[in-house]
Amino acid sequence: MEAPHTTRVPKVFLVRTEIDAILADLGEGDPVPSERELATRFGVARETVRQALRELLVAGRIRRHGRGTVVSRPKLTQPLSLRSYTEGAISLGRTPGRIVVGWEDIAADGATAADLELEAGAPVMHLERVLLADGERIGLESTYLPLPRFAGLRDGYDPTTSLYAAIRATGITFAGARERIETVLAAPREAGLLECTTALPMLLLHRRSVDADGAPIERVRSLYRGDRVAFEARLSPEHA
Amino acid sequence: MEAPHTTRVPKVFLVRTEIDAILADLGEGDPVPSERELATRFGVARETVRQALRELLVAGRIRRHGRGTVVSRPKLTQPLSLRSYTEGAISLGRTPGRIVVGWEDIAADGATAADLELEAGAPVMHLERVLLADGERIGLESTYLPLPRFAGLRDGYDPTTSLYAAIRATGITFAGARERIETVLAAPREAGLLECTTALPMLLLHRRSVDADGAPIERVRSLYRGDRVAFEARLSPEHA
Repeated sequence: MEAPHTTRVPKVFLVRTEIDAILADLGEGDPVPSERELATRFGVARETVRQALRELLVAGRIRRHGRGTVVSRPKLTQPLSLRSYTEGAISLGRTPGRIVVGWEDIAADGATAADLELEAGAPVMHLERVLLADGERIGLESTYLPLPRFAGLRDGYDPTTSLYAAIRATGITFAGARERIETVLAAPREAGLLECTTALPMLLLHRRSVDADGAPIERVRSLYRGDRVAFEARLSPEHA
Repeated sequence: MEAPHTTRVPKVFLVRTEIDAILADLGEGDPVPSERELATRFGVARETVRQALRELLVAGRIRRHGRGTVVSRPKLTQPLSLRSYTEGAISLGRTPGRIVVGWEDIAADGATAADLELEAGAPVMHLERVLLADGERIGLESTYLPLPRFAGLRDGYDPTTSLYAAIRATGITFAGARERIETVLAAPREAGLLECTTALPMLLLHRRSVDADGAPIERVRSLYRGDRVAFEARLSPEHA
């Protein structure tokens, strides 16, 4: 059985595959051989090596470190679960952190209002944070909570800590969620906050969580760096 | 609270947002206004409009149609479930199809052997297919099955039909699976088979399915066009 399409394999791809094999023998944080060295080794133009390295950067295999380039650590594989980002990161042995970008009351747009079962324009609390793993910016999370149900969070909640812990402390149980996963390119503002380029594929998640009565708790839009994060799901026959 | 980073919003992004608003008022399949028309309307260079349209193409908002560009239909949102691609597509009202790229016995590489609980180099059946929805190429799926357990499929199974149905017909139950989801750029061969560019972000899924005894059934590597497909998960406390 023959492939219905044959495609010319560009030189960049062959060089990328060769470099990938070299990286497999190096450890995390080890310096990547220089462009000049790789170009000489493979007998190709430096521009070809440069493009292959750009692709490996986007794939998360290597990362910039100071003026050089080093081998990356593996992607952070987060379970798809009802747990918070904080709990997930800790369970993976990473130190979670958050940088607050904004925290304000706004009027719900159509999609937010629908998810939270509110009228469009109803007041919601919006909390936007950069998510850190071991100090590295890996995601940007926007949470929308219905007001006045969560107005109490304005006093006493420290937005650099786990929001889920604070919500649970009010006696609310996270009983279920629906999560949509897709891939997008970052908008310039998002790329700036995540210190990456707009050419880097990102994972975009939308979550709607409900409590034990089925009442909506939150709508969350999370954008994760595709070179640093993967997700894992466990499927059972109830999902059939 | 101020954003810790301020980023210049490039003109391309503003134009893209304006065009997005225009698209929202159009229906699926409607022609997108021409570059010239958009450049005049927004008072920007045609190259700015061209770049904005390229980004909307990658995002799946518009698609090429003949010599022009039209508004896309929404992404195919597939549930993360133990069901097959075939069943998922049908439940969404789409007509599934498959183009067989290859079907052969090969020696298991390390990752495949580990997932299937075989020795590296043990024989596995490899089936590679392009997945279609309403005739459109949306994914590329590689399935690895342990031999000799599934050697019987060589006779009588039509590889353009549902593999899950054929496996179930042998009396095997899909009892659980682990699925890893990440985003990558397509390799040139993959982009060729999916008729897209290597600059398009893709969703990459790895699945390992087990039967009721916990014995491995398959390892699957699926690559989906990020502009055409999204996934949806339903989370419950068992996932906590």
